[in-house]
Amino acid sequence: MTQETLLDRRTRLLGKHFPLFYDRPLHLLRGEGVWLYDADGRRYLDVYNNVPHVGHCHPRVVDALCTQARMLNIHTRYLHENIVNYAERLTATFDDDLKMALFCCSGTEANELALRIASKHTGGTGIIVSDHSYHGNSATLAALTTAFPTSEVKGPYIRTIRVPDPYRDGQTGDATAAEVATVIREMEAQGIKLAALLVDTLFSTEGLPNVPEGWLKSAVDHVHAAGGLFIADEVQPGFGRMGSHMWGYQAHGVTPDLVTMGKPMGNGHPLAGVVARGNLVNEFAAESMYFNTFGGNPVSAAVGLAVLDVIRDENLMENARAVGDYIQAGLHKLAANYDIIGDVRGRGLFFGLELVRDRTTREPAPRETSRIVNQMRENGVLISKIGRHENVLKMRPPMLFNREHADLLLSTLDRVIGSI
Amino acid sequence: MTQETLLDRRTRLLGKHFPLFYDRPLHLLRGEGVWLYDADGRRYLDVYNNVPHVGHCHPRVVDALCTQARMLNIHTRYLHENIVNYAERLTATFDDDLKMALFCCSGTEANELALRIASKHTGGTGIIVSDHSYHGNSATLAALTTAFPTSEVKGPYIRTIRVPDPYRDGQTGDATAAEVATVIREMEAQGIKLAALLVDTLFSTEGLPNVPEGWLKSAVDHVHAAGGLFIADEVQPGFGRMGSHMWGYQAHGVTPDLVTMGKPMGNGHPLAGVVARGNLVNEFAAESMYFNTFGGNPVSAAVGLAVLDVIRDENLMENARAVGDYIQAGLHKLAANYDIIGDVRGRGLFFGLELVRDRTTREPAPRETSRIVNQMRENGVLISKIGRHENVLKMRPPMLFNREHADLLLSTLDRVIGSI
Repeated sequence: MTQETLLDRRTRLLGKHFPLFYDRPLHLLRGEGVWLYDADGRRYLDVYNNVPHVGHCHPRVVDALCTQARMLNIHTRYLHENIVNYAERLTATFDDDLKMALFCCSGTEANELALRIASKHTGGTGIIVSDHSYHGNSATLAALTTAFPTSEVKGPYIRTIRVPDPYRDGQTGDATAAEVATVIREMEAQGIKLAALLVDTLFSTEGLPNVPEGWLKSAVDHVHAAGGLFIADEVQPGFGRMGSHMWGYQAHGVTPDLVTMGKPMGNGHPLAGVVARGNLVNEFAAESMYFNTFGGNPVSAAVGLAVLDVIRDENLMENARAVGDYIQAGLHKLAANYDIIGDVRGRGLFFGLELVRDRTTREPAPRETSRIVNQMRENGVLISKIGRHENVLKMRPPMLFNREHADLLLSTLDRVIGSI
Repeated sequence: MTQETLLDRRTRLLGKHFPLFYDRPLHLLRGEGVWLYDADGRRYLDVYNNVPHVGHCHPRVVDALCTQARMLNIHTRYLHENIVNYAERLTATFDDDLKMALFCCSGTEANELALRIASKHTGGTGIIVSDHSYHGNSATLAALTTAFPTSEVKGPYIRTIRVPDPYRDGQTGDATAAEVATVIREMEAQGIKLAALLVDTLFSTEGLPNVPEGWLKSAVDHVHAAGGLFIADEVQPGFGRMGSHMWGYQAHGVTPDLVTMGKPMGNGHPLAGVVARGNLVNEFAAESMYFNTFGGNPVSAAVGLAVLDVIRDENLMENARAVGDYIQAGLHKLAANYDIIGDVRGRGLFFGLELVRDRTTREPAPRETSRIVNQMRENGVLISKIGRHENVLKMRPPMLFNREHADLLLSTLDRVIGSI
């Protein structure tokens, strides 16, 4: 089967808009640690994938998956230790107030559940999100997607704010916090009660802006004062990726009412969840029977536990901090050499370069960004792009990325950016 | 860890309303074929679980899972043969018009996606469901849940119909088809355009009524005439469970525009999907970028393929027909002996007994139903209950259920019903 034929069959069966990376699509066969291997046996350094959080096909995670899958895989209306042990281990990584967990299969399901809990608690329907964000693919979440078009109508109960971005537009933290207060007032004037503020605490889709300290706390104070809840979407920053903290919200000095998590949670296995404050779960479930067929089943819980074990035993959060700092330093050196690099972004093992055509006007360089992403792939390093101008190189490798990998990334970036 | 302590921890971590079967909860450790083993080593015949469709921990499915999980588990924006091969094999089991597939992780995600596609295609928001149904746990699907209370508001764009049930209330097929036409007119009068009719083609939550032939086709004709789409929810009847057909809709002589599937698709692995007619997928995806992180990844697709292989190679659809017929005959014999059995229900390996206090008045017997379910568990056979009066014994075993298992089920039913 040639690659072209595979692509044709894919288009016929899955549709012509089914997303595909790179001008020259990559046909992958094997993954191991931070490495991916294509159908020709060529090796690629993976600086994109956060789903294989502790590394592609980590043997300890796969062993946990297979051992449990051979033993029992069943829904959670029977007693089983795995889900209880996992909920205990997971909630132990959160602040004291966040001590209950519900499990599901995807970030979409997690954000749906958190919004349902918030609506029930507040009696409200109003939702505030960032004006360049994405939280999932259900009808409700598509309606509040602002990072790309969807066919859903954005009703008056969805309001957007602009996340502060000191580099790009000078929006300050105070201005964004004030915007939150304003949209709450506007909703109330229309008779819409606030349910929740929902943000990715690393603002990755927004392009990883270096947000000022304290702004999120001010924004959340407005939300709480209006009776709303704060939902921290930890799909991107969670599970130690930021190096400094296990969860992104912790870097903002604020405690959420609900935390949602997904992608990295099962290292590829479809596992997601919601961790909730105080009595929110009991209050919600008293009125709405919530049951998720696959969520938290013995296999999913075993996988989730193994991921937590590996993060701890391989010191992956500490590694994210140390290697992340090393890469940040390297990116700053590159920025000193190349005018196209307008800004260096990120924290821990999630970093980006904002590319501009002119350092004074800061005119975004999306075409160059796309060329670099594709050239990096041709040079054996997989990255992508984000941001409202699609001009931020997105780099987010598995958590066992080390200095040697970092050197290969930096030298390849140096060569590719130099050739553009 | 004693069972009581496990239950206390479960309540503390997952909430006091987290669903649990049976008066005396079952602590399970192991599954194999149609058998489940508890923490005391006691064996139970599983006549409830459809998720382990081809049997608990089927070695061929687990091997496919583990082999691929050791090789590569990654999202679908790279080329990979598994998702293409699986889409091809899966769509080959459908009618000619249904030739495109999209994958996701749960029945909830599948129904969400199908409704989004229907809304995009029709430009409508109106949804018709049965008045005792459940299609998933997102906010949108909770709002159209009619089988139990949810905290979501049921807006005017959700209309319900009563599925014909010749035994219970004499609702005829013509009456239900006419109801569909009526609710469409009512919506149109309120300026609400119809998007879709969404039903489980086996009407399992409704209690498996023996619906008259042809009514669904008449209903769907009304839906199509109004510009709406028909979504067949095949989570329950699909993958050959009905014995007579691979998909439930085929028994009604009607072709859906969209088919959703979930639970049995991955034999426990979180795998679900939508199969769509003609150009619906391309039309939807042209406007809304749809991407599902875990849906159709190489591991999920390998598992899905293995399930299809086992259904074919072990003749499980034929088995469902033969053993299903055998069980139906046995249930009719029981009904001849026990007045409490008002009606015998079901098709293939999904069958039920409607229990009544009086055969003339047909007064439902929910308390007796619950006692029988619990007594069956004490006697080593796992079943459950459904129906709007919670008086239908629900029996839906893994597809490799054979005559020996059937005899054990029937003799235990005989003993337990006789003792009530």
